[in-house]
Amino acid sequence: MTPKFTLLIDCRDETGLIYKVTSVLFKYKLNIIGNDEYVSQEDNHFFMRSEFSGQVDTALVLEDLKRLLPGGARIRLASEEKKKLVILVTREYHCLSELLTRIHFNEMNATVQAVISNYDTLKQFTENYGIPFHHVPHGELSREAHEAQILLLLHQYQPDLLVLAKYMRVLNPEFVREFQHRIINIHHSFLPAFQGSHPYRQAYMRGVKIIGATAHFVNDRLDDGPIIAQSVIPVDHRQDAAGMALAGKDIEKSVLSHALKIVLEDRVFVSGNKTIVFD
Amino acid sequence: MTPKFTLLIDCRDETGLIYKVTSVLFKYKLNIIGNDEYVSQEDNHFFMRSEFSGQVDTALVLEDLKRLLPGGARIRLASEEKKKLVILVTREYHCLSELLTRIHFNEMNATVQAVISNYDTLKQFTENYGIPFHHVPHGELSREAHEAQILLLLHQYQPDLLVLAKYMRVLNPEFVREFQHRIINIHHSFLPAFQGSHPYRQAYMRGVKIIGATAHFVNDRLDDGPIIAQSVIPVDHRQDAAGMALAGKDIEKSVLSHALKIVLEDRVFVSGNKTIVFD
Amino acid sequence: MTPKFTLLIDCRDETGLIYKVTSVLFKYKLNIIGNDEYVSQEDNHFFMRSEFSGQVDTALVLEDLKRLLPGGARIRLASEEKKKLVILVTREYHCLSELLTRIHFNEMNATVQAVISNYDTLKQFTENYGIPFHHVPHGELSREAHEAQILLLLHQYQPDLLVLAKYMRVLNPEFVREFQHRIINIHHSFLPAFQGSHPYRQAYMRGVKIIGATAHFVNDRLDDGPIIAQSVIPVDHRQDAAGMALAGKDIEKSVLSHALKIVLEDRVFVSGNKTIVFD
Amino acid sequence: MTPKFTLLIDCRDETGLIYKVTSVLFKYKLNIIGNDEYVSQEDNHFFMRSEFSGQVDTALVLEDLKRLLPGGARIRLASEEKKKLVILVTREYHCLSELLTRIHFNEMNATVQAVISNYDTLKQFTENYGIPFHHVPHGELSREAHEAQILLLLHQYQPDLLVLAKYMRVLNPEFVREFQHRIINIHHSFLPAFQGSHPYRQAYMRGVKIIGATAHFVNDRLDDGPIIAQSVIPVDHRQDAAGMALAGKDIEKSVLSHALKIVLEDRVFVSGNKTIVFD
Repeated sequence: MTPKFTLLIDCRDETGLIYKVTSVLFKYKLNIIGNDEYVSQEDNHFFMRSEFSGQVDTALVLEDLKRLLPGGARIRLASEEKKKLVILVTREYHCLSELLTRIHFNEMNATVQAVISNYDTLKQFTENYGIPFHHVPHGELSREAHEAQILLLLHQYQPDLLVLAKYMRVLNPEFVREFQHRIINIHHSFLPAFQGSHPYRQAYMRGVKIIGATAHFVNDRLDDGPIIAQSVIPVDHRQDAAGMALAGKDIEKSVLSHALKIVLEDRVFVSGNKTIVFD
Repeated sequence: MTPKFTLLIDCRDETGLIYKVTSVLFKYKLNIIGNDEYVSQEDNHFFMRSEFSGQVDTALVLEDLKRLLPGGARIRLASEEKKKLVILVTREYHCLSELLTRIHFNEMNATVQAVISNYDTLKQFTENYGIPFHHVPHGELSREAHEAQILLLLHQYQPDLLVLAKYMRVLNPEFVREFQHRIINIHHSFLPAFQGSHPYRQAYMRGVKIIGATAHFVNDRLDDGPIIAQSVIPVDHRQDAAGMALAGKDIEKSVLSHALKIVLEDRVFVSGNKTIVFD
Repeated sequence: MTPKFTLLIDCRDETGLIYKVTSVLFKYKLNIIGNDEYVSQEDNHFFMRSEFSGQVDTALVLEDLKRLLPGGARIRLASEEKKKLVILVTREYHCLSELLTRIHFNEMNATVQAVISNYDTLKQFTENYGIPFHHVPHGELSREAHEAQILLLLHQYQPDLLVLAKYMRVLNPEFVREFQHRIINIHHSFLPAFQGSHPYRQAYMRGVKIIGATAHFVNDRLDDGPIIAQSVIPVDHRQDAAGMALAGKDIEKSVLSHALKIVLEDRVFVSGNKTIVFD
Repeated sequence: MTPKFTLLIDCRDETGLIYKVTSVLFKYKLNIIGNDEYVSQEDNHFFMRSEFSGQVDTALVLEDLKRLLPGGARIRLASEEKKKLVILVTREYHCLSELLTRIHFNEMNATVQAVISNYDTLKQFTENYGIPFHHVPHGELSREAHEAQILLLLHQYQPDLLVLAKYMRVLNPEFVREFQHRIINIHHSFLPAFQGSHPYRQAYMRGVKIIGATAHFVNDRLDDGPIIAQSVIPVDHRQDAAGMALAGKDIEKSVLSHALKIVLEDRVFVSGNKTIVFD
């Protein structure tokens, strides 16, 4: 089997970038399977994703690219290896079960190293998949102290990505910074947006006709990081707040799965507070 | 041809309401074509829409219903007659052209009496459909003085419904009250919502993956009346703010058409700040 | 807790049917929660679904209804009890895992009594949910002999519904007749339709832009019984046949879940070769 | 204003193609705005679409490309010029009005040279847009004689594309060959597919839950050329055959518009009986 690679480049735009990158791939006789490029006119920034196959010393490729590309270029070269995930949950099952099932049956190129939760509700369910479950109750702990316990586990697992599959606690900025652009969260979204608690109740009282979900990278502003994927489903007056929440579960699990899948396939660039998705 | 009617009832819920209503229809040998009921558990309120056909003195039906139903019941009986519309626009064509075309080809049970605009941009286009176009420039006028001129026209036309097909001016509460639950507006909607100006630019900068539109009845809070219909379309990073706005046009015209259609078919109840839609 | 019931009636249409049905509910002081009616103009047939709550001897209600309704009326009265399911599968996991998870977490009003398969691929996965798994290999058996073994199990379980969650064998007409309108199947659907084998390959070669799935009751014509639910997802040229099949899995599991949910909620009437769905 | 171009290349795949193409663009200091490539593994064929801007003698670019690319490569270079359309219709208005309106308001990069119809139903409507309308009744004419009259008009207009906006007559293979991959048609699509006449009636009788539309290039097999775009909308039992046909109109006009738009933007390659769409 010829090995496959995914090359991700972003840098200041200038004439000839694709030519330069493909000249390197051509030099090493690598075969381009697919290619995507985008230039943000906004800030004159260039994004390129290239899938290729071939036998190559990747260090040489990276070296050549570094020499040819403008200063400050970010260059990543991902192999076909499975990415390692840790999933954080509270008590809701719908996103966790969706991810565990898909990964169990190899729909995604990932390994779940562990599930961590402040409750033990989903322990048995997780362990049925042969995956370690860590119950880290927040109890009387400060947020910092609780996160310190979680970080201890994470440092042990060294995951590539953290997935908040309905983890209902806000993370400290320090925690978020340690996993910059590596924490994926899912939350419900409404048209119009509702502030405050009980959003499904507010949505019901307002008679909204659509319920949505947004998957995004976590940054230090709650529910406000770069959006990876969004989708919606129709609802109507016959659904009460609980019915809308149930509909919301379906769209949340589907959007989170999709977002994780495209991140695992190295299709997502973060640029400022937005994403560039090549899918 | 046997005439058709649509009966709309809403009142405090109590046992036996459907039985009572249908007993009246049965008494006059009317044939029920379709029936919808809903009870809002929230406030214990009953909604019923009944389509029936038959030869009948509608005054007798209404009298019987009034006697049988709880005090304060709202009872409306609509015939098959075309409803009269006046459309207000500014300079954007997409919603106006959609409505004029659909109504021209009899897709909707309505007559457009006139189009009124603060610009003359769409005059020729409107007149091609044989519909009067009134240019009422706001110029140096106060909002009240400008609206007074529009009201003069509206009092002359006596429309059943006003449609704001991208009418970009805020209406005074007095104006709105005169046409309570009879003014339909369309506006773009975003996940997340954006405050302030240039929402498409904000949406682009934030990398949203979905653009939506909301059609609603106008109340005295801007863009905040009871929602009639909503829909969305996917967008991505390759669309700049202008591209997103163009995508937004498609969803706006489609949502406004749909909302107007179901209002014209007497399928929409307003209840507090929400709607009950039987479609 | 006041018990809840769902009443399903279909019969020849005539004036006054809703009045008659609701008069019975009124007589027993039952509280109507929701009501749906539909008259098929095609064959002048009346369909009604009524959810109500109250303390009542249901035998009396049924007796009264029988007396009042036209001869040949079908009247069913369902309680809130969980319905019993047996699921048949072959080797594909995606529909089974979706159903087991949703039912495990009480999203559906059902109990899975057993999973039966001609392969043992999904045995461990099923048993993790505490559900019996019967491996009935078809081996050298005739179709009749194989089905006889399955029927033996089904006669023991007495399920309300059979779900074919990607059961890839055709059932004999005798088998189907025993469970008339009680077997739900899911299959992929294409625009345009493709005859013969390898439909995803054909879809890919034809460059279809949409992949669909159809859930239906099984009748004696393969893949051709009354449709319960359908949905589609977009695909494009970048997905090869395998990629389209993977996209197909997502839509199949979602459509089958939805179809099963509305059948479990007694929202689906079968009428000739079509369904009337009150959802 | 720097002029913009779109370059479309397809040829036998080999290593280094993107490198070679971009080396030419780089040589002439052209600025790549966007780039899409795709390799069909099926038949080892390479597709590339490149949007670039710059001052250049396009003949030189084409010459260089021809020299560098494999024999048999198809190379097209499109400028920003508006494409010329002739629209063929019968009596249905919905697709025609959608296209005329969008083009009138400059949503598409096209000019409508004329509308041709075998009926005069849409004459006035077309002429309101200032567009010539040719009524070519088929009357007693053979299909060949009728098409000969239409061809006479087409030879006069020399359109880039023909759009069949619900033109309900089959075209002869000779006619089709003259405009190979330049005739766009729209037709309704169903899941399952229905043979024979009155498809909406069949769809209604079968209780389908989805109505679709397919836009495709016309080849000599009726309704069977390469698919450009498809979409669907949900329907239910409450819509009779006429209601489904009305819903079908909405999806037909939307799919045809979208298909025409992406063809006008040179985003669509035809490859055998399928399309590669870069959108």
